[in-house]
Amino acid sequence: ESRPLQLVSTGDAENDYSFKLCEENLDRVLSKVPDGMEVSVVSVVGAFRTGKSFLLSFFLRYLNSGSDDDASEAWMTADGPSLREGNRNSVKPAAGGAQGVQEEEGEGSSLRSFEWRGGVERMTTGIWMWSEPFVRRTEGGKEVAVLVVDTQGMFDNETSMGLTACIFAVSTLLSSCQIYNVEKRIQEDHLQQLALFSEYGRMALNKEYALATGADADAEVEAAAAAAAAAADRTGGDPAAGEGTGSPSLKGGATAVSTAVGFAAKAKANAEARRAAAAGEGGEAAVAAPASQDRMERPFQRLEFLVRDWQNYEDEDLPGPKLQDEMIDYLAEVIEDKGIKDLRDTREQITSCFEKISCFGLTHPGFDVVKKTFSGDISKIQPSFLRLLNTYVRHIFGELLEPKRINGRFLTAPELRNYASAYVELFHNGAHFPAARSLLEATAGAHNGNAKHVALHKYKAEMDRLLGPNATGYLSPPSFEEHEGLCREGGLGVFDAMATMGRRSEVSRVRALLLEELDDAKIRYAEANSGRNPFRGTE
Amino acid sequence: ESRPLQLVSTGDAENDYSFKLCEENLDRVLSKVPDGMEVSVVSVVGAFRTGKSFLLSFFLRYLNSGSDDDASEAWMTADGPSLREGNRNSVKPAAGGAQGVQEEEGEGSSLRSFEWRGGVERMTTGIWMWSEPFVRRTEGGKEVAVLVVDTQGMFDNETSMGLTACIFAVSTLLSSCQIYNVEKRIQEDHLQQLALFSEYGRMALNKEYALATGADADAEVEAAAAAAAAAADRTGGDPAAGEGTGSPSLKGGATAVSTAVGFAAKAKANAEARRAAAAGEGGEAAVAAPASQDRMERPFQRLEFLVRDWQNYEDEDLPGPKLQDEMIDYLAEVIEDKGIKDLRDTREQITSCFEKISCFGLTHPGFDVVKKTFSGDISKIQPSFLRLLNTYVRHIFGELLEPKRINGRFLTAPELRNYASAYVELFHNGAHFPAARSLLEATAGAHNGNAKHVALHKYKAEMDRLLGPNATGYLSPPSFEEHEGLCREGGLGVFDAMATMGRRSEVSRVRALLLEELDDAKIRYAEANSGRNPFRGTE
Ligand SMILES: Nc1nc2c(ncn2[C@@H]2O[C@H](COP(=O)(O)OP(=O)(O)O)[C@@H](O)[C@H]2O)c(=O)[nH]1
Ligand SMILES: Nc1nc2c(ncn2[C@@H]2O[C@H](COP(=O)(O)OP(=O)(O)O)[C@@H](O)[C@H]2O)c(=O)[nH]1
Ligand SMILES: [Mg+2]
Ligand SMILES: [Mg+2]
Repeated sequence: ESRPLQLVSTGDAENDYSFKLCEENLDRVLSKVPDGMEVSVVSVVGAFRTGKSFLLSFFLRYLNSGSDDDASEAWMTADGPSLREGNRNSVKPAAGGAQGVQEEEGEGSSLRSFEWRGGVERMTTGIWMWSEPFVRRTEGGKEVAVLVVDTQGMFDNETSMGLTACIFAVSTLLSSCQIYNVEKRIQEDHLQQLALFSEYGRMALNKEYALATGADADAEVEAAAAAAAAAADRTGGDPAAGEGTGSPSLKGGATAVSTAVGFAAKAKANAEARRAAAAGEGGEAAVAAPASQDRMERPFQRLEFLVRDWQNYEDEDLPGPKLQDEMIDYLAEVIEDKGIKDLRDTREQITSCFEKISCFGLTHPGFDVVKKTFSGDISKIQPSFLRLLNTYVRHIFGELLEPKRINGRFLTAPELRNYASAYVELFHNGAHFPAARSLLEATAGAHNGNAKHVALHKYKAEMDRLLGPNATGYLSPPSFEEHEGLCREGGLGVFDAMATMGRRSEVSRVRALLLEELDDAKIRYAEANSGRNPFRGTE
Repeated sequence: ESRPLQLVSTGDAENDYSFKLCEENLDRVLSKVPDGMEVSVVSVVGAFRTGKSFLLSFFLRYLNSGSDDDASEAWMTADGPSLREGNRNSVKPAAGGAQGVQEEEGEGSSLRSFEWRGGVERMTTGIWMWSEPFVRRTEGGKEVAVLVVDTQGMFDNETSMGLTACIFAVSTLLSSCQIYNVEKRIQEDHLQQLALFSEYGRMALNKEYALATGADADAEVEAAAAAAAAAADRTGGDPAAGEGTGSPSLKGGATAVSTAVGFAAKAKANAEARRAAAAGEGGEAAVAAPASQDRMERPFQRLEFLVRDWQNYEDEDLPGPKLQDEMIDYLAEVIEDKGIKDLRDTREQITSCFEKISCFGLTHPGFDVVKKTFSGDISKIQPSFLRLLNTYVRHIFGELLEPKRINGRFLTAPELRNYASAYVELFHNGAHFPAARSLLEATAGAHNGNAKHVALHKYKAEMDRLLGPNATGYLSPPSFEEHEGLCREGGLGVFDAMATMGRRSEVSRVRALLLEELDDAKIRYAEANSGRNPFRGTE
């Protein structure tokens, strides 16, 4: 029986928020993939309650009933006039949210789907995969098994940043097409979050690669070297050089909407060229050139921004391609270089992580849909939404479809399985990874750490005046103590003046580290000083 | 003539993104405040294009024409059936966004307002204040001059994090009521951003206080001490103690919606008590108690979450108070302790920064309003939106109205002016403040800084085995070099394995600092070693 199966479960406080692969479930899905067939993974991430699972329920309807030969919306209602499957609007929310295997669907519905619901409480936890692979043909004519993945919504007021990062990163690692679901527009904070979480994914990829390819004793160092090399390629040592490496990969010119928008490229001009290419106006050669300049392989394949409740189509009634062009232009504008350092870094990070970046806008489905009492009645959904949705599913499972590729290899089911368990294991032993922190905590951590550095520097500079390597004079113990005391006061004063950000307990922790370092330095100065004692050995 | 005046302007790349107070404009507004009258400042912050200026246009209509005696919606159309003022939908967007003084309103409209518009491009830059103060009476019967402030939308894909932090922080510092405009729900990332930006505000407040009250030579250290003291109060040294200090201030029990939701308090129980109090059921004494436990003064007055396009009222047609109760419950749920460290820290930060925290939900104004061609026709706005808006303006300019208070003092116009210029000056000389970074940059910065610390620690621990303060043996120069080389390799190995996050150039920068520190340490070890040379002086 078809249903969603939990792929990654997340614990609660009692089991230390464990992040665990449900191997049997993954095996159940993958065992249905024909031997030797490559897999394609479509995953949706984004904030909680933003219609991700609702969208996936339509994806499943399309994959079950849609056909390339019939461009109509008939597939939408082929399984019934109402999207009953997955609809939990009539079901009382379980306290604490759904955990483990999703419960039986109530009230006579035998159809299943990813569960969706109105309201503000989170619904999905961890990562889920549809139990059935769908065999489809890519535009290139290759058969692939399509796996559909749903993820826990981000920022649900219940999940730590660490867990959020893990979920997003694992989704990024596993998917050949990562759909980033955002509401109304692509905001800078969406981009910043994407930049951070994809960095966790990139680090895991490098780490796994290093572990798999080699040397265990020096695994740490090897991983580091690989990562450093990749990073060097990625952002190119110095900022100026970096500008050259971000140029976009413009493969797949036949895809109208599809676009990898490179940070350094004149994004708008590119969009024009790409449109020309897509329209077969002979632009192919022109847009193919930048790809050959790519110096590195980007770790992930496709990032697709899906803007929900998009309000800015010039005219929603125009045919699909025109609207898609508008979204290309919009994405190009958002992602073009703004000449401001932090915006630029964010864009560089994103464009260096994904081979292709594209964008689509779905309009608001209408006020009936958002009601907590919405029964799933498809006739109550805005026709413009349905029309765009029809375009969208054909886009995602048509022109954008490609097999999952990691480190240059296309993956079959057993390979995907190995990667999945390796990645989840890496995140499970979070030790390898930098702590994901809240915005304030991270900013304060970086700042207060810097304050410690500055304070220690000041202490040493002042100590050195009388006691440094170039000093020759000897200080008597009382003079030494007096000078050290003054220098210490100076150093701590600088620290206390600077390190005022964030939690008091965190500042104290860093201050304690500083004191340790001061004590350590003092011992060394004392020793050096006593080595200069002219009466040494005569006492 | 009434109009918006720019209070804080922000430059572009050419003038180094300067952040500047427009003193003449501020003086123009404040000169209209009656002598000796206290001021109240209502400011709106939030992401760009989320209806902030549109809302303020209604605020102005209410302040111009509304009356406490007439509870109807008549004020909405008193200045005409269409909200033409501020409407820039018909005007071609100026390239690069509005700068400086806003342009003449076109096409015969002589009415002005804060400008609003459909689309995805940002509209407002910097901070603006309405040219006219409105004299109103607080519930306590005191006359205050109400100033209305509009701010640049956050995360507009054009503004650095530093500038975003400045704008948010200055708005927080100046307002007696800070309205935080969010879409659809209060997400954890909204809370994280609030926590970070209010921390900048708190730091500025402490800094300014230290500068104003004292000692200039030691200003740095004094500010630090003041901040440290405030912070110690704020989060109470250790985590366990911290739990006791977050208890909510529950003044103003007569305000149904108003609620300072303390992190440690059983938030839902409180909401019940507060409702009981508001309903005059004798709960007053019970809810007054926690306030007396407050050990510190919180730096800011009121934070009001305004959720736009709220979809979750049980029944939008119910009378106001019932809906407001639902929002109290919602806020209480969002902000209650979830037992997860980063969520808890975020909540502690917010509840320790604001005396009162409340929440209101406005429903979607209808699809006509979001169109780029919307003329402002009020009859096209959803009646439920207008009904809630009518409740809302009376809430903000009625029960929530209070004079601006800083460090316990209510402010008159000249005092507000002094504070405004002091704060803007502080942010202008950004030197005092920690750099605001993107999420990835901050996380990577904290992590890579930590890697440097660990690496240096490892180096010293290994060097100390043969060359530490307790070592007595002397190493010949070649042995010294060999041992140092191995230790250095070990330290750098640890660094390279750990510091793999973020931009390559940033990692290199931190690595260069590490190398400096290693070189410095080496010199000291060499000196100590040569001090142990038994043949010293005999060579
Ligand atoms: N505004 C809006 N609501 C939607 C859209 N799609 C679905 N919804 C509604 O949003 C709510 C949450 O949907 P769900 O799929 O459970 O969200 P998820 O948490 O992201 O998986 C439900 O009430 C859906 O009916 C959309 O495109 N726009
Ligand atoms: N969805 C929605 N749109 C709104 C709302 N209020 C105003 N708008 C529209 O949002 C757009 C941006 O409004 P504006 O006030 O300029 O946004 P600001 O950038 O936050 O100041 C305009 O098209 C408004 O008509 C609301 O409550 N919900
Ligand atoms: Mg979901
Ligand atoms: Mg605005």
